[in-house]
Amino acid sequence: MTGPMTGPITGRTLRVALLGCGVVGSQVARILTEQADDLTARIGARPEIVGIAVRRPQRSRDVPVDPALFTTDAHALVTRGDVDVVVEVIGGIEPARSLILAALESGASVATANKALLAEDGATLFAAAEKAGRDIYFEAAVAGAIPILRPLRESLAGDRVRRVLGIVNGTTNFILDRMDSTGAGFSEALEEAQELGYAEADPTADVEGFDAAAKAAILASLAFHTRVTVADVHREGITDVSAADIASARDMGCVVKLLAICDLTDGDGGSMVSARVHPAMIPLSHPLASVREAYNAVFVESEAAGQLMFYGPGAGGAPTASAVLGDLVTIARNRLDEVRGVGESTYAQCAIRPMGETRTRYHVAIDVDDRAGVLASVAQVFAEHDVSIQTVRQEGRDDDAELVIVSHTAADAALAATVQGLRELAAVRDVTSVMRVEGEAE
Amino acid sequence: MTGPMTGPITGRTLRVALLGCGVVGSQVARILTEQADDLTARIGARPEIVGIAVRRPQRSRDVPVDPALFTTDAHALVTRGDVDVVVEVIGGIEPARSLILAALESGASVATANKALLAEDGATLFAAAEKAGRDIYFEAAVAGAIPILRPLRESLAGDRVRRVLGIVNGTTNFILDRMDSTGAGFSEALEEAQELGYAEADPTADVEGFDAAAKAAILASLAFHTRVTVADVHREGITDVSAADIASARDMGCVVKLLAICDLTDGDGGSMVSARVHPAMIPLSHPLASVREAYNAVFVESEAAGQLMFYGPGAGGAPTASAVLGDLVTIARNRLDEVRGVGESTYAQCAIRPMGETRTRYHVAIDVDDRAGVLASVAQVFAEHDVSIQTVRQEGRDDDAELVIVSHTAADAALAATVQGLRELAAVRDVTSVMRVEGEAE
Repeated sequence: MTGPMTGPITGRTLRVALLGCGVVGSQVARILTEQADDLTARIGARPEIVGIAVRRPQRSRDVPVDPALFTTDAHALVTRGDVDVVVEVIGGIEPARSLILAALESGASVATANKALLAEDGATLFAAAEKAGRDIYFEAAVAGAIPILRPLRESLAGDRVRRVLGIVNGTTNFILDRMDSTGAGFSEALEEAQELGYAEADPTADVEGFDAAAKAAILASLAFHTRVTVADVHREGITDVSAADIASARDMGCVVKLLAICDLTDGDGGSMVSARVHPAMIPLSHPLASVREAYNAVFVESEAAGQLMFYGPGAGGAPTASAVLGDLVTIARNRLDEVRGVGESTYAQCAIRPMGETRTRYHVAIDVDDRAGVLASVAQVFAEHDVSIQTVRQEGRDDDAELVIVSHTAADAALAATVQGLRELAAVRDVTSVMRVEGEAE
Repeated sequence: MTGPMTGPITGRTLRVALLGCGVVGSQVARILTEQADDLTARIGARPEIVGIAVRRPQRSRDVPVDPALFTTDAHALVTRGDVDVVVEVIGGIEPARSLILAALESGASVATANKALLAEDGATLFAAAEKAGRDIYFEAAVAGAIPILRPLRESLAGDRVRRVLGIVNGTTNFILDRMDSTGAGFSEALEEAQELGYAEADPTADVEGFDAAAKAAILASLAFHTRVTVADVHREGITDVSAADIASARDMGCVVKLLAICDLTDGDGGSMVSARVHPAMIPLSHPLASVREAYNAVFVESEAAGQLMFYGPGAGGAPTASAVLGDLVTIARNRLDEVRGVGESTYAQCAIRPMGETRTRYHVAIDVDDRAGVLASVAQVFAEHDVSIQTVRQEGRDDDAELVIVSHTAADAALAATVQGLRELAAVRDVTSVMRVEGEAE
């Protein structure tokens, strides 16, 4: 079966199948039911849930829908042939991918919050949607309720985006914010996040930056009209961020954030894209610095519009459902008009700039012997790697001293080699903090 | 002539007519020309400027277009019958309205930045677009480059917006920011704004709140799916804001901003809308408090998404052009698909809540005789109007004292009557500051 089975939306009813009924799915079901009149007026057709695929249909759920709608056979639900829109909120690669592909083949459009799948294999989904003549929308996949994908894909379609800088993971922002405000170490702050429900029992996906890396891939693809997958994203988590790093950031008027950074830069053979996720110091004066607790924010720099910021809750059942339902309304309108919305745009086909070539700045704090000539030998290491120093701060303590150095912009590989060179220097007792610095004019 | 004259877009060229070539229009022309390849890839058709209507075609302009494109006959340009999209950036009510209506009748879609016209007579434009089967988009009309109208109309279409709180006028934000940071009075700060080009020689439209009121009407209409015109908006400017008001705000941890406030509240006969523009104190912890200089930001509260904020440059040639061109790309895609985008949505038909019934809080500072019983008589005035006091701060000075009182939420009319009652109290020497307080939980 290759073409859509469903025809035009008849009888002004929009048939919705829901895959998953957890934190997000139950909110989607609730709002679809409670606000059906408003949604009908906005869509031009009445949304009706025709089935909800779950693993345990008997489980008690606080969802105002007919219990007969629950089914364990997700595949049968998406292929029954009379579904207009499939909402996928189960997450993960499989069975989500197979179900989305089956749904598109069966003529349904899809709204999904599945960042991992989109970042790993978006191309397969987009191709299937194209072939089926259906939409796949995914606003909820990045930064929860914050409208960021639609602005990138549509509002800024007449502009040229140069950089996207985002706090796109609430768990790590909560942890870093707690470390900053209480002086706690990483483990202690993680524990607090887990107690408050901001971090999962296995926090790997968040604290190691996997979640943010998936979002960075999606943001870079949309911002620069090229294909970026999660494999293209340089990723470092926050598990090595120490209380000393946070204190060192404070001392220089900065705060530490886990950033997703997407850049469009000129290369020899045309524009190049870099996408990376790592902790970085940003100045307190930067709009992202005041994003506290589990909030998300995405900062966009474009040629004509200048600097924009989008701020809001990055996760949670109701906020994510808001994004899913916004997509559902658009998809439904497109179905009524028998058109497709904006599809994948990859015409720019930019090459990926390797992390080593990406230009950034380093903050380095080192403990050194407090004797004459040390600064000269340290400066020599920077010079050997063609890295220029912007500021040096030196603080004496008994018989040793701390040097805090911030470089000018240089290739990441040169900066990393400089740090390695410092570690090998006899006068350097310890490299106590290494972190990139972002969000600041040099 | 009632139907479109133009047929499908042939030869993959999108014919654009530009009305106005000033600060914004020249940037639209520049970007359309310089980024034609990117725009072609995103639209699926090549944009081509077919004419630019200006008052003085001979004037020297730094715009990379064929001088033969300039014309003084705007009406002939929009009615020539082969124009796909008309970009209107001349502003004001007439001739903009007649030209837009003629353009739609002649089969062109329209992108406009004209907030005054939309807020005064949007209904006529939307009806004409509907009749012609064409689009009218206007992202640039509110908050310049910041994508706010599309998020409200589309991203949040599955949610219920309850409140929009915006800093939507850069001139007044610049003036208030300067008053706050330098202690200057209004006149002095206005003068500086004029010298720096942030305020016009006749600053009335900005400082009296007319510009912000037009934007409030547009925001309220879109947020609440109802028709709100500028006549429905309560408007107060910033000309009476004094250095004492600013200092008083500081003392209570607040900052003064000119806010556009749109609320959806429950009324006896269904939901009611209020829209108002006035200076207000907001706590320094509120995200809008840190919006400095001439920047704009719009804060949105919706039931499912929670609190969102959109931040960026609210004016200027290139930022406004970015918004116009984003609309142009969408309009062009719709033309290629032979569909219309989201039209006017007024199904909710909410009544307008009069300002006197709108619930807000007042900050009042008064000079009183420093003797026993004064606070009791002041408190009695509040009680007479059923206004509850949240905080009182009293500072003695020689033989008089200053009382700073912040009320709980009450109807604006009751609060205004309370202030009038205070003025009439024998013990009150002067009411030195009266201002509403917003953006804070009680």
